Amino acid sequence: MSAFVWLIPVLAACALVFAAYKAAFVSKANPGNPRMQEIAAAIAEGADAFLKSEYRILAIFIAVLLVLIAVFINIGTAVCFLLGALCSILAGVFGMKVATKANVRTAQAAQEGGMNRALSIAFSGGSVMGMCVVGLGLLGCSLIYLFTRNYDILFGFSLGASSIALFARVGGGIYTKAADVGADLVGKTEAGIPEDDPRNPATIADNVGDNVGDVAGMGADLYESYCGSVLATAALGASAFIGQGGMQLKAVFAPMLIAAVGVFLSVIGIFLVKTKENAGMSQLLKSLSLGVNFSSVFIAIFSFIILYVLGLTHWLGISFSVLTGLLAGIIIGKTTEYYTSHSYKPTKKIAESAQTGPATVIISGVGTGMISTAIPVVTIGVAIILAYLCATEFSTNLLSKENLSFGLYGIGIAAVGMLSTLGITLATDAYGPIADNAGGNAQMSGLEPEVRDRTDILDALGNTTAATGKGFAIGSAALTALALLASYIEEIKIALLRVADTSGLEAAIRNLNTQALAVDSKEALHNAGFADFMTWFDVNLMNPKVLVGVFIGAMLAFLFCGLTMGSVGRAAQKMVEEVRRQFNSDKGILDGTSTPDYARCVEISTRSAQREMIGSSLLAIAAPVAVGILLGVSGVLGLLIGGLSSGFVLAVFMANSGGAWDNAKKFVEEGNFGGKGSYAHKATVVGDTVGDPFKDTSGPSLNILIKLMSMVSIVMAGVTVALNIL
Amino acid sequence: MSAFVWLIPVLAACALVFAAYKAAFVSKANPGNPRMQEIAAAIAEGADAFLKSEYRILAIFIAVLLVLIAVFINIGTAVCFLLGALCSILAGVFGMKVATKANVRTAQAAQEGGMNRALSIAFSGGSVMGMCVVGLGLLGCSLIYLFTRNYDILFGFSLGASSIALFARVGGGIYTKAADVGADLVGKTEAGIPEDDPRNPATIADNVGDNVGDVAGMGADLYESYCGSVLATAALGASAFIGQGGMQLKAVFAPMLIAAVGVFLSVIGIFLVKTKENAGMSQLLKSLSLGVNFSSVFIAIFSFIILYVLGLTHWLGISFSVLTGLLAGIIIGKTTEYYTSHSYKPTKKIAESAQTGPATVIISGVGTGMISTAIPVVTIGVAIILAYLCATEFSTNLLSKENLSFGLYGIGIAAVGMLSTLGITLATDAYGPIADNAGGNAQMSGLEPEVRDRTDILDALGNTTAATGKGFAIGSAALTALALLASYIEEIKIALLRVADTSGLEAAIRNLNTQALAVDSKEALHNAGFADFMTWFDVNLMNPKVLVGVFIGAMLAFLFCGLTMGSVGRAAQKMVEEVRRQFNSDKGILDGTSTPDYARCVEISTRSAQREMIGSSLLAIAAPVAVGILLGVSGVLGLLIGGLSSGFVLAVFMANSGGAWDNAKKFVEEGNFGGKGSYAHKATVVGDTVGDPFKDTSGPSLNILIKLMSMVSIVMAGVTVALNIL
Repeated sequence: MSAFVWLIPVLAACALVFAAYKAAFVSKANPGNPRMQEIAAAIAEGADAFLKSEYRILAIFIAVLLVLIAVFINIGTAVCFLLGALCSILAGVFGMKVATKANVRTAQAAQEGGMNRALSIAFSGGSVMGMCVVGLGLLGCSLIYLFTRNYDILFGFSLGASSIALFARVGGGIYTKAADVGADLVGKTEAGIPEDDPRNPATIADNVGDNVGDVAGMGADLYESYCGSVLATAALGASAFIGQGGMQLKAVFAPMLIAAVGVFLSVIGIFLVKTKENAGMSQLLKSLSLGVNFSSVFIAIFSFIILYVLGLTHWLGISFSVLTGLLAGIIIGKTTEYYTSHSYKPTKKIAESAQTGPATVIISGVGTGMISTAIPVVTIGVAIILAYLCATEFSTNLLSKENLSFGLYGIGIAAVGMLSTLGITLATDAYGPIADNAGGNAQMSGLEPEVRDRTDILDALGNTTAATGKGFAIGSAALTALALLASYIEEIKIALLRVADTSGLEAAIRNLNTQALAVDSKEALHNAGFADFMTWFDVNLMNPKVLVGVFIGAMLAFLFCGLTMGSVGRAAQKMVEEVRRQFNSDKGILDGTSTPDYARCVEISTRSAQREMIGSSLLAIAAPVAVGILLGVSGVLGLLIGGLSSGFVLAVFMANSGGAWDNAKKFVEEGNFGGKGSYAHKATVVGDTVGDPFKDTSGPSLNILIKLMSMVSIVMAGVTVALNIL
Repeated sequence: MSAFVWLIPVLAACALVFAAYKAAFVSKANPGNPRMQEIAAAIAEGADAFLKSEYRILAIFIAVLLVLIAVFINIGTAVCFLLGALCSILAGVFGMKVATKANVRTAQAAQEGGMNRALSIAFSGGSVMGMCVVGLGLLGCSLIYLFTRNYDILFGFSLGASSIALFARVGGGIYTKAADVGADLVGKTEAGIPEDDPRNPATIADNVGDNVGDVAGMGADLYESYCGSVLATAALGASAFIGQGGMQLKAVFAPMLIAAVGVFLSVIGIFLVKTKENAGMSQLLKSLSLGVNFSSVFIAIFSFIILYVLGLTHWLGISFSVLTGLLAGIIIGKTTEYYTSHSYKPTKKIAESAQTGPATVIISGVGTGMISTAIPVVTIGVAIILAYLCATEFSTNLLSKENLSFGLYGIGIAAVGMLSTLGITLATDAYGPIADNAGGNAQMSGLEPEVRDRTDILDALGNTTAATGKGFAIGSAALTALALLASYIEEIKIALLRVADTSGLEAAIRNLNTQALAVDSKEALHNAGFADFMTWFDVNLMNPKVLVGVFIGAMLAFLFCGLTMGSVGRAAQKMVEEVRRQFNSDKGILDGTSTPDYARCVEISTRSAQREMIGSSLLAIAAPVAVGILLGVSGVLGLLIGGLSSGFVLAVFMANSGGAWDNAKKFVEEGNFGGKGSYAHKATVVGDTVGDPFKDTSGPSLNILIKLMSMVSIVMAGVTVALNIL
């Protein structure tokens, strides 16, 4: 065993080496003519500037939390917290630096005429992000655990990841859509100039946004899910096999091993992504799918092998739990594709409704998005039940103490299964904005139209992978949050045991209900199962504290979305005013005789995003703390479940409505219902603009809300036990 | 006691007498010139036609359910079911008949110049609906209980009410918005003719829609809440005081008595609504408020008196619970007003964002609607906790068996408190569409512009009361559903006792968890409390069945909304095509030389609404049955909580976004940001059109989903216990 487990950091380190190799590959490519390089430099500079100013705020935030954690929890957790945050930042910075290099080189490769070469550069750029995320995540988690053998402090690592994700996703989401919506409103609608036109002062900011929102933001989001699912499952494994020494260790290492092998398979999968130099859309899609499918199939097989070799109790059932998660991820991805791609009926119907104007586009898009939640939710529901049942090997007394532990471990490992191939799925995801930027660069530097045509094919493919990636991100967030829920109970137990140590057993069980009075020893408290805590804290659906918690949680998902929507609106408004000001003060801009002030627009986006993200971020952190103090453990659990269920459904709705609007517009632009410039086209542009914050700001931010509220609750468990009003 | 309780049906009958008196008052008023009467007749005919065809479908549905209930449950429940449905139909038909009479007479009164006279007729029309709903609801419930002393079969009555509400709300909602959106899209946007222009073929259908959706639909919705809250509270009272004979009876009658006194106070409140003949908007609002405030203040006082005279245990605390509900209703109403009236900042901001086009109107409207959910949810949360605490008189062991029963009774009676003044609040609500129709009639029959100005003031007032009414309807639906949740557990207990009777105790507890094995007698089962059932069925938040139930419930709220949005879209599309066809086939219509075929549009709306409502309706009924069979009692409870929490928040969001868009348009029309015909105005028209199905179809339909799923679960409790797979 002991030699075997060192495979985990070794494979994680391999991922980083591979990322460095891919980064070098991108750097070596031809960066194009001076005009292209100039534009690329402006985008890279803007992205850097955003990250720097984001990290300045983050530094304060992290410093404050670091001191609080060190004082109120312990030094170990504080150090882990710092490491988790630093690893996330590192992955973000490195991934984004390479992405901003890759876009111009992709454009150049497209100019040189090779689709394979262009795909290869763009995809390599994306895979650097993917590999950094899984490599740093797994390396950090595994090394800390291998050296300390303490999974408790590891939640600090995960909280660090969550904190960065919050700012990266929310801030990045606001940035990208403020720039995008602002650029579209004045550029396309008022001035009548096309997307990515160099005359539009907001166009650089728009391209920067793709990098900070869709590359760095998405990366931080999935980094959090990845670490969260592995750690929560490890913790559940420790609890399921409590007091069984060797078996417990195996259960802790199992998720890390699966993740490590997943990293290795992702590397091979990435190597498989190749196409012909004159490839079309369907061939490109096929080559990407080949890589992803290879990794998925083999991780399924390897899960059985790993768990068999480990000799884990219920290894066969638990392997099927992994499979469940993997399949759920694929089904959710496919559903997302069905509802958002204009190859299928739902999006075509939205385009059709554009003939009666923007109002019907919005109505049908909202309707479609809401309907599209059904399959993902049922899928997650079935996955939860199946992962649970498999892990208990379909035992008879499903909810017994032992089976509950096994079952929850099964749900956790299903999340690990879903995320095991993250290295390559995130690569296909981060590839999208690179291709998008490549097109922008081609347009702005005035390359031949056929270059833009080639990058457009890459971009269209990127839209599909991005939509699938979003389905994947939210699906994994939901399963991870469920696993974290169980970890929360574990932490509450630990907190109670600590109280029993310091102030005696009576003090520990004072806040529990009368049935807990039967607990007559620390031993009994230590051996209590999940169901016991449910009874002692009255975490049932007739407890008004639970009910109110569920209501508040559901509301928070909407409030969080509303706040981020409002942020995008306000920030876009500022951008519109600035662009109008530039157009008015210098008539030469629209004629193409003078250069607009791009930097000013970048600065406005940056400042708006920074300011706007603070309110909603604090809400996500403060809510579980406040509910914990007011309504106690049962209220917090209600809050987490309410936020998780509503947040999940709301996120799917918003992501899919947004994606469908985007592609409905593209469908009309392809010449349907009047094509570009028609009444229907104008109507779909409205839909697309509304969809922007839906799919790229508010929807994805919910992933963070869901996970972060759980993480905050876990870390604050001790405080909730100590201070509790009702 | 026995004489005292007969006061309930007597006061309920008084309400009906009062309704008849008000109906006669309306009928006697001057119905205007022949042109006005002709239009009014067309609207009345259309409304009749819709109701008739709706009832034809309902008849089949009711017949099927009647047989099923009679066979699988019992004859008593079946008879009650039929009575409940019939009373709802009766209230709907009578209320709507008078409403369609009142609109033309209001227009005539406005022509004769008197604001007081116009208000008086419109408000009298509305009060007929209000009084019929409370009168028939309370009369039915109380008489059945007085004669049978069996509250169990009374849930049949409530299910009857729910069934009608489902079809009336969903079908009516689709009808009204299909006609409205269709009429707007072709009329205002394409042909450029104003609202309610007689040249628009869909204009009569639009006016019919106000009656079938906003009068009959809203009435059926609140009728269901009213009966549901009174019955659920009575059942909770019976369970809280189980085995305490006299006290139990008092607890059962208390909610009915409060409701009965509320009816009486509503009558007085309605008498108080008077204004000056040349009154402006603020004076009108003041006079309506006077009536509502009078009823609210006095029902608060009377609750204390009633409960004191009854001598109910914890009478003082329970009186405060009533007060809590009443206050929560008022706060939610005021919040709705703040977020949707253009006197306040949020709606003004939406109007301001119209300067950058329809997309920003939609973004800011969605954002505002989502943010607006915070206060109502926190209010309901505080109300739940306070109502619970008050009813237990702030006892120390809050969640003990006894306190749980008291607390839940407190939550139920808070719902009764919120609905006790329904007679007058519904009158102010149903008044809105009457005033709206009066304006339509004035426009269509070409009365002087100042008549339209006067009816516009009445209509604007109606918009405010309608928004408040919607907040009220959803708030009461949430509290009622919570009370029904507890009733569900009661019914599960009854079902288990029935199994114990027929197949022995062992068979009854076979499906429960191991802790239930301690139940060694029917007596013990009979005396079990809510918390016991939570433990035995593992209804806690670590049970995957509960978790999956919550997810599915949250999803259903979105799916239901999505389906109804889609229905409106499709039905509106049909309307658009028909109007275009008429405009094209007869050029004289737009010149005003030939009359359009109104009846054809009415028919299209009717048929679309009928066809479209079936799918979503079946979903609401089938979901709890399917979840019950697959996931058992714990899954059903999860489903109900998930649907309730998400549905409540989603409903508030949709209603408030819709209301805010409507008034943002009005704000622009008043001359702001360019006024009528400006770019900003066109943008707000898009917002208004999107808001139509939000606020009048999907949002309100959620109230029904929430309550109906609970009712179906209650009635199907026996089946869930008998058939249960997992």
